[in-house]
Amino acid sequence: MKKIRAAVVGYGNIGRFTIEALEVAPDFEIAGVVRRDASKREDIPAEIPVVGSIDELTDVDVAILATPTRKVEEFAKEILAKGINTVDSFDIHGQIPALRKSLGEVAREHGKVSVISAGWDPGSDSVVRALLEAVAPKGITYTNFGPGMSMGHTVAVKAVEGVKAALSMTIPVGTGIHRRMVYIELMPGYEFEKVAHAIKTDPYFASDETHVMQVESVDALKDMGHGVNLVRKGVSGKTQNQLFEFDMKINNPALTGQVLVCVARASMRLQPGCYTMIEIPVVDLLPGDRDEWIKLV
Amino acid sequence: MKKIRAAVVGYGNIGRFTIEALEVAPDFEIAGVVRRDASKREDIPAEIPVVGSIDELTDVDVAILATPTRKVEEFAKEILAKGINTVDSFDIHGQIPALRKSLGEVAREHGKVSVISAGWDPGSDSVVRALLEAVAPKGITYTNFGPGMSMGHTVAVKAVEGVKAALSMTIPVGTGIHRRMVYIELMPGYEFEKVAHAIKTDPYFASDETHVMQVESVDALKDMGHGVNLVRKGVSGKTQNQLFEFDMKINNPALTGQVLVCVARASMRLQPGCYTMIEIPVVDLLPGDRDEWIKLV
Repeated sequence: MKKIRAAVVGYGNIGRFTIEALEVAPDFEIAGVVRRDASKREDIPAEIPVVGSIDELTDVDVAILATPTRKVEEFAKEILAKGINTVDSFDIHGQIPALRKSLGEVAREHGKVSVISAGWDPGSDSVVRALLEAVAPKGITYTNFGPGMSMGHTVAVKAVEGVKAALSMTIPVGTGIHRRMVYIELMPGYEFEKVAHAIKTDPYFASDETHVMQVESVDALKDMGHGVNLVRKGVSGKTQNQLFEFDMKINNPALTGQVLVCVARASMRLQPGCYTMIEIPVVDLLPGDRDEWIKLV
Repeated sequence: MKKIRAAVVGYGNIGRFTIEALEVAPDFEIAGVVRRDASKREDIPAEIPVVGSIDELTDVDVAILATPTRKVEEFAKEILAKGINTVDSFDIHGQIPALRKSLGEVAREHGKVSVISAGWDPGSDSVVRALLEAVAPKGITYTNFGPGMSMGHTVAVKAVEGVKAALSMTIPVGTGIHRRMVYIELMPGYEFEKVAHAIKTDPYFASDETHVMQVESVDALKDMGHGVNLVRKGVSGKTQNQLFEFDMKINNPALTGQVLVCVARASMRLQPGCYTMIEIPVVDLLPGDRDEWIKLV
């Protein structure tokens, strides 16, 4: 059986774990890694080409975008126009419909497929949330994140004057409410109390319970574990108090990389257009023969 | 917007809760209930026609089969051939592929859609299991059922000589292993120890930890609550120990009825053929505009 040839665009944490997921997938081969500085190999396995442009790779079926979220649209449009499917884990919830529309136009024009916002949230969590909305149409869903590092909040802390290094952890306290535990290294000459106050009053933190702590080494605290606890209590038909809970404790970029490989596979089975994960049959995320999975699950 | 006209075939517990789910669904109207003895209305609301044959109802888009599982194939073939979609909650896991093939042929021949095995297990649990297989391709999934009544086991107990009434409860003890708690009323002239021994050595129970208890009233013990705890520990890419858990505590026929209504809706959006739930995008289970759901989840 012909394998799906995938290129990975970008080589940060997500790119690295995507390569690992591709290496163990039975139906993929790695066309190469595309990165700005193609001379930097870091730990990329020697047999994988590293190039500065996707044009230098041959017969690419799908490009997995492991770029910063704000670069996704630009890269995806360019690559779809070359006749290559794209998948990404674009994670700005409010902007998903607009991205879907814009990439959908380019994808259909070139007869290709784009799958967007395919990480774990948005992504696999969205599939679970949609399923629970369906089976208990009335009710409330709470998505509780963590404990785990928040990229967005960490970046916001780093932007505060006097902060040398930072880590913002998201701690779930239930019903979708989160505590922020912020660990910082201070630049010389700054006063901790003042910096801590600036962080707590930053719009990113002002409405959450936030604790700021000074540490010797932020790096020593970092791990890539994360979690979700998703709860729905609702009504099926006219029957109250139907209780559902989805919980996971995972390595964050490893799960994202795996989900990206799953939707890259699905992209080969879909009609031209742009899709989010809730629009894709779950069986299409899985390798091999559909009939075998129907037997199993 | 034109509403989907649904007929409910059969009026046991699942039929009753399906009617409730249809009554509160914004996009459905109830064409009628089809049952063997159309003179029996029981608690069916007065405005709903009760008929002996689906031919007596007009403009039916989809028939929801709330019949015994072994009757599904016969009813579905007959109704599909009349140009009406069918959905069911056929629950004999090993026979799903054969049913899908057989109904798929009839459905395609008549340009209609059949969705099979759409309850909670098989059904919504299958969607979660397939999703977890995708995002952690190596590993083990355990599905733990209960506490709740097992229909199959209860029927098996009732078939044992000397049993007047019975209830077999499924109790999860982890890693997919279940304890059977069997409650019986005894017929006069039978010895409890002998009947209990016959139950424990029945093929349905012989390989499980089984406790048999004599009670005054089996009926006084019955409730329709059930539960699932579905656990997967697996590998995403090359990263071990990814932990996932899905848990629910639900009214059993209410959830089944609601899932049936969801797939009845999806049946109106699919190409002719026969589908299991893992082959249907979850967004198609939901009412209204696809774009609105993409915004929300």
